[in-house]
Amino acid sequence: MEKSRVLVVGGTGFVGRRMVRASLAEGHPTFVLTRPELGLAVDKVQMLLSFKAQGARLLEASLDDHRSLVAAVRQVDVVVSAMSGYDLLQQLKLVEAIKEAGNIKRFIPSEFGMDPAMMGHAIEPGRITFDQKMVIRRAIEDANIPHTYVSANSFACFFVGNLGQMRTLVPPKEKVLIYGDGNTKAIFIDEDDAGTYTIKSIDDPRTLNRTLYIRPKENILTQKEVIAKWENLSGKVLEKIPITGEEFLASGEGTDYINQVGVGHFYHIYYEGCLTNFEIGENGAEATLLYPEVEYTRMDEYLKRYL
Amino acid sequence: MEKSRVLVVGGTGFVGRRMVRASLAEGHPTFVLTRPELGLAVDKVQMLLSFKAQGARLLEASLDDHRSLVAAVRQVDVVVSAMSGYDLLQQLKLVEAIKEAGNIKRFIPSEFGMDPAMMGHAIEPGRITFDQKMVIRRAIEDANIPHTYVSANSFACFFVGNLGQMRTLVPPKEKVLIYGDGNTKAIFIDEDDAGTYTIKSIDDPRTLNRTLYIRPKENILTQKEVIAKWENLSGKVLEKIPITGEEFLASGEGTDYINQVGVGHFYHIYYEGCLTNFEIGENGAEATLLYPEVEYTRMDEYLKRYL
Repeated sequence: MEKSRVLVVGGTGFVGRRMVRASLAEGHPTFVLTRPELGLAVDKVQMLLSFKAQGARLLEASLDDHRSLVAAVRQVDVVVSAMSGYDLLQQLKLVEAIKEAGNIKRFIPSEFGMDPAMMGHAIEPGRITFDQKMVIRRAIEDANIPHTYVSANSFACFFVGNLGQMRTLVPPKEKVLIYGDGNTKAIFIDEDDAGTYTIKSIDDPRTLNRTLYIRPKENILTQKEVIAKWENLSGKVLEKIPITGEEFLASGEGTDYINQVGVGHFYHIYYEGCLTNFEIGENGAEATLLYPEVEYTRMDEYLKRYL
Repeated sequence: MEKSRVLVVGGTGFVGRRMVRASLAEGHPTFVLTRPELGLAVDKVQMLLSFKAQGARLLEASLDDHRSLVAAVRQVDVVVSAMSGYDLLQQLKLVEAIKEAGNIKRFIPSEFGMDPAMMGHAIEPGRITFDQKMVIRRAIEDANIPHTYVSANSFACFFVGNLGQMRTLVPPKEKVLIYGDGNTKAIFIDEDDAGTYTIKSIDDPRTLNRTLYIRPKENILTQKEVIAKWENLSGKVLEKIPITGEEFLASGEGTDYINQVGVGHFYHIYYEGCLTNFEIGENGAEATLLYPEVEYTRMDEYLKRYL
């Protein structure tokens, strides 16, 4: 079977660059949208040039120029959006272009976290990301665009490297806050693996119009289990300070917006268990079962880089 | 001879990451300063972790904590500063720490552009970068710190990829502004090569307390020569629109700060010829003569990535 042609939108972002690399690694003809408004963003320009050197093709188009977007979409079979979480509704322009182009066999909108369909009860202000993702889903389904939604759960760099602590991305040296009893199961993914599984799914009939959940068995862990792995690797025991859900929520009040969003997400994951408190239904499929050939990264392996 | 131990300050920046890579490539024990205020800067954190995976050691210290800075400096022989151009005077804190530590055999302050000693006449507001670099030089010399100043002239990504055009980093498709007669000689460097030459110089007695000028013979080119190389590669002739120095300077008036800085720098380079209108004196040394073993990138080679 010929490999589908993939267009990544938002290819220089944290998630997008992983989609580009995974698409190239899987041998897909890979296209990356570049926007005329790049200007002097030297890191983005150099990243795009390095994708090009690795075989990707750069397609120039603007979200504010419908015609250019339709032309770009017409050159590929699959569109993977990794647009920034700060304004996910910008994707409506992409949905419009895909609808008009009419040739797209699979669209992956920018999600890659908790399943927004399970987050109807989410806390303000963080819930906006789930609400916006649901708006995009409705637009996709209303336009009958073939799609896959990817729920990649918690990226290890944001939840494991910091042992689940806020405002940092590296392991604390002395003490660690424990959310509740620390025994709620969460699901952690090496962000590179999220790219691999997503790209694996794009030509797969088993994921058509379904949600792909990435739930690697060995990465379904409690906060305490993650901390124990780190203590094991570092040979140092951390002081553990339990914090109740009420205290934790109160700690976010009056803080900056980003932190408030974080507190909400952390609460859902570590107190409610929102990643693991439901079974995958008929409209879902689990990535490690579909693609057992992928050697996903275990969290003790992931943590070694912080030693 | 044992390789000196190198500490890079600002190691995740555009220049700094190239210093880290060059230092590792040359086999120096390489240390990268990390600051506690990194927080959620995920790209920087991941870059630091990747340096670590390549053999660098991360040293935690803060510019606002003199003691931590002195302790970091005491662990190495050479300090390379690649701190951001937005506030070069922050380096005074580093100079203080190096002075107190007393063990540093070579300090390379953050310069890597035009020689600030030749820019006493520079235009506002861009001249602030030269003025600040001179303040740092005076502090270094007053403290008798062994040093090398590196004048890397014009980085290709900012001056060649865009054929010398403002507000973009990629070649224009239709027309190109020509500064004056387009025949002023400038000097262009692949930014990776700037890292290589800098690190080559740090243990070299010939560069002690001197300025290292990087002037690769084949990269001393006029704007018209750069454009001709691109036209040759792309097979497309661009429309050339000459602009006088007065018109060009006027074009910057009332624009944003970054653009005004850019107009000044471009004016000095393309109209005045500030990179080539002086000979290297007794206090200078030329990098390609000192290190002929380095295969520097030629600009037609550099331009191929934009095709």
